[in-house]
Amino acid sequence: MALKSFIEVSPDSHFPIQNLPFGIFKPEPASPPRPGVAIGDYVLDLSTISVSGLFEGPFLSGSDCFLQPNLNKFLALGRPAWKEARATLQNLLSGMIIISDEAKLRDNPSLREKSLVPMSKVEMVLPIAIGDYTDFFSSMYHARNCGIMFRGPENAINPNWFQLPIAYHGRSSSIVVSGTEIIRPKGQGHPSGNSPPYFGPSRKLDFELEMAAVVGPGNELGKPVDVNEAGDHIFGLVLMNDWSARDIQAWEYVPLGPFLGKSFGTTISPWIVTLDALEPFACNSPKQDPQPLPYLAEKISKNYDISLEELRNFFCSKRVMIMPSVLRFKSNQLVKKIHVWSQEATSITCKASAPCIAKQEPESYGCLLELTWNGQKSLSLNGATRKFLEDGDEVIFSGCSKGDGYNVGFGTCSGKILPSP
Amino acid sequence: MALKSFIEVSPDSHFPIQNLPFGIFKPEPASPPRPGVAIGDYVLDLSTISVSGLFEGPFLSGSDCFLQPNLNKFLALGRPAWKEARATLQNLLSGMIIISDEAKLRDNPSLREKSLVPMSKVEMVLPIAIGDYTDFFSSMYHARNCGIMFRGPENAINPNWFQLPIAYHGRSSSIVVSGTEIIRPKGQGHPSGNSPPYFGPSRKLDFELEMAAVVGPGNELGKPVDVNEAGDHIFGLVLMNDWSARDIQAWEYVPLGPFLGKSFGTTISPWIVTLDALEPFACNSPKQDPQPLPYLAEKISKNYDISLEELRNFFCSKRVMIMPSVLRFKSNQLVKKIHVWSQEATSITCKASAPCIAKQEPESYGCLLELTWNGQKSLSLNGATRKFLEDGDEVIFSGCSKGDGYNVGFGTCSGKILPSP
Repeated sequence: MALKSFIEVSPDSHFPIQNLPFGIFKPEPASPPRPGVAIGDYVLDLSTISVSGLFEGPFLSGSDCFLQPNLNKFLALGRPAWKEARATLQNLLSGMIIISDEAKLRDNPSLREKSLVPMSKVEMVLPIAIGDYTDFFSSMYHARNCGIMFRGPENAINPNWFQLPIAYHGRSSSIVVSGTEIIRPKGQGHPSGNSPPYFGPSRKLDFELEMAAVVGPGNELGKPVDVNEAGDHIFGLVLMNDWSARDIQAWEYVPLGPFLGKSFGTTISPWIVTLDALEPFACNSPKQDPQPLPYLAEKISKNYDISLEELRNFFCSKRVMIMPSVLRFKSNQLVKKIHVWSQEATSITCKASAPCIAKQEPESYGCLLELTWNGQKSLSLNGATRKFLEDGDEVIFSGCSKGDGYNVGFGTCSGKILPSP
Repeated sequence: MALKSFIEVSPDSHFPIQNLPFGIFKPEPASPPRPGVAIGDYVLDLSTISVSGLFEGPFLSGSDCFLQPNLNKFLALGRPAWKEARATLQNLLSGMIIISDEAKLRDNPSLREKSLVPMSKVEMVLPIAIGDYTDFFSSMYHARNCGIMFRGPENAINPNWFQLPIAYHGRSSSIVVSGTEIIRPKGQGHPSGNSPPYFGPSRKLDFELEMAAVVGPGNELGKPVDVNEAGDHIFGLVLMNDWSARDIQAWEYVPLGPFLGKSFGTTISPWIVTLDALEPFACNSPKQDPQPLPYLAEKISKNYDISLEELRNFFCSKRVMIMPSVLRFKSNQLVKKIHVWSQEATSITCKASAPCIAKQEPESYGCLLELTWNGQKSLSLNGATRKFLEDGDEVIFSGCSKGDGYNVGFGTCSGKILPSP
């Protein structure tokens, strides 16, 4: 019989007791931010649970990790503490299992009142202080499509792509939480003929549907994480919109890679869905071709089966495979997904396994660049047409794994485009 | 008559009262880190000065910014607070000027004892918690030389380079303070023929002599800093060694730019030399060709005249021009310098002015890639020869501006190569 909470949770909810994603919220606009988990239409305030002494296990008892304004201290404790927190919270929220002689939360009305906040009333903020942010070029189809558009079919995918995770560092200080408005960036585009480059508001503003892995404990400089231990560094996943100004990107990216065409804003969903919650949706990874070099070869290679939707009401839903990823870093990192079919690691600095975000079929394209083939054709959306995003457009992503009678969902990741000032 | 401290400072010192660079130090190995300024052979402990109530100006009186383990809170206060701190400290340390009816530090033996720590006894740590780190492709000669080696003479410099600051984000979590040992990274190099790519310890380990600007207050997302106000965001400069694994870099960098070939370690000098201290060495900027677009055109364009030395005992000293740079960011940033002759800004996210690190003459090359032309010829060093760095090699940079009877110096930036494990 499925685990069930004493809190009523709709069967459609993304947040049943099987999920329990972690985030940072403010119960009132003036409250200090604190950690919480989502349960149905409520947020359970972990600072209150912690102060009440209900984290009694060896890793969390006496810790102040839930009295912080972000999850960094909790994430730094590593997987044993993450599993202990999940087990404690599933026990506290369960309608059936009673860990000692009483149901310490269910049967304590005053504690329930203090610790359970209606989700409709809270403000979500960024769940972590992001140390570094790495964006992996993970989907072969996305890589090939972008390559054809930017460099022509002969040079679409560089040979290195098949051998190692190709990636660049993004700007961590412009990562924002879902709901934050995005101002259309100004920048330079290609000159035409002998005229100077275009400068002004981007004419090719785009979204990218992606998922990001939040990496926890980290490692020492120069001591790489073994590919087979990399999974233990991933706390969980969030949805990500890697907003992109294609005209700025196309003009600037040779030879040092994308910079201002990507740095003006990146949106993530507020709830981090843990790998432990996704474990029932684990599935085999596709075979890698060519075989990875030994330092990148995993003994067991896992994907997770998650359905993603983008631009609610605009595009059909799609089904993609997500694999875990991890990077070496000394602090909590936000790591974007990777190489298409492979689990990978770079032995000096990063181990990286890979989700596939876009599939080859046109209905699975993950950005307008692909959907309109760089603006060469239009896309019909509820009676309107789009080549790229217009001011006022709102982009909403959602993602969910469907279990037997329950969902493990990501909620939404949304952002609206405001005009350049 | 030149300003002089009551503390004896050798005429050769990098740290007279005219300099007063800021850093973070530990007086004893077990002490908590705290802010200090360098004065001669001493470090003045700003936490002690602050607790003693000697910061009496409007911006710093009552502030706890000098009771922090890094300079971020002080940097966030902006230029008026930086100038106030400098004026207060010059008064306290002066041998001649007495701000009120007593010399509050000079004539207080107990405070002197508590607050002045011999530099030989302290441990320096990273001066700031680095939010983002951006590396600009600033020197035309370096860009051209790298371009010829990586892409051939026809495609050496891409046309975008002349129009906007070309840059990439580096990994901020692997920036370390001078003296930290650097472990030779392992990684992939180009396959030869039909064999798989090389994997193992880098065979082309290199240094890069650079300077980095530390950017303070930041701005809101989507609200760019005007190019004419950009200087107010730069707190100061440090020396930087952008260690590079050329074999890893050459194989990985298309199309997303440098990644693991640069991310294994980046060294900075511990003392941030303020722009206020460098003001006497300001000089005109070279003319830009082509003229920058209006959003990048500065009304007044400044460089600073600083002499840099690298690989002590190995290469001759060189003279380079340093221009200030700034980027937009929400938190304190470490921004590496930029575009060769120009002051620049990107109106959406970054304003960036530019130092020149390498000059065209061979004796001014700033890395082994250029000095040995990618290992094609050897360099003689004190009887030994080098194409790239060997295990055990130590690289030491130094930099200094020469005033009338005093120096404004950067101290040193050093690192030693350890073998791959």
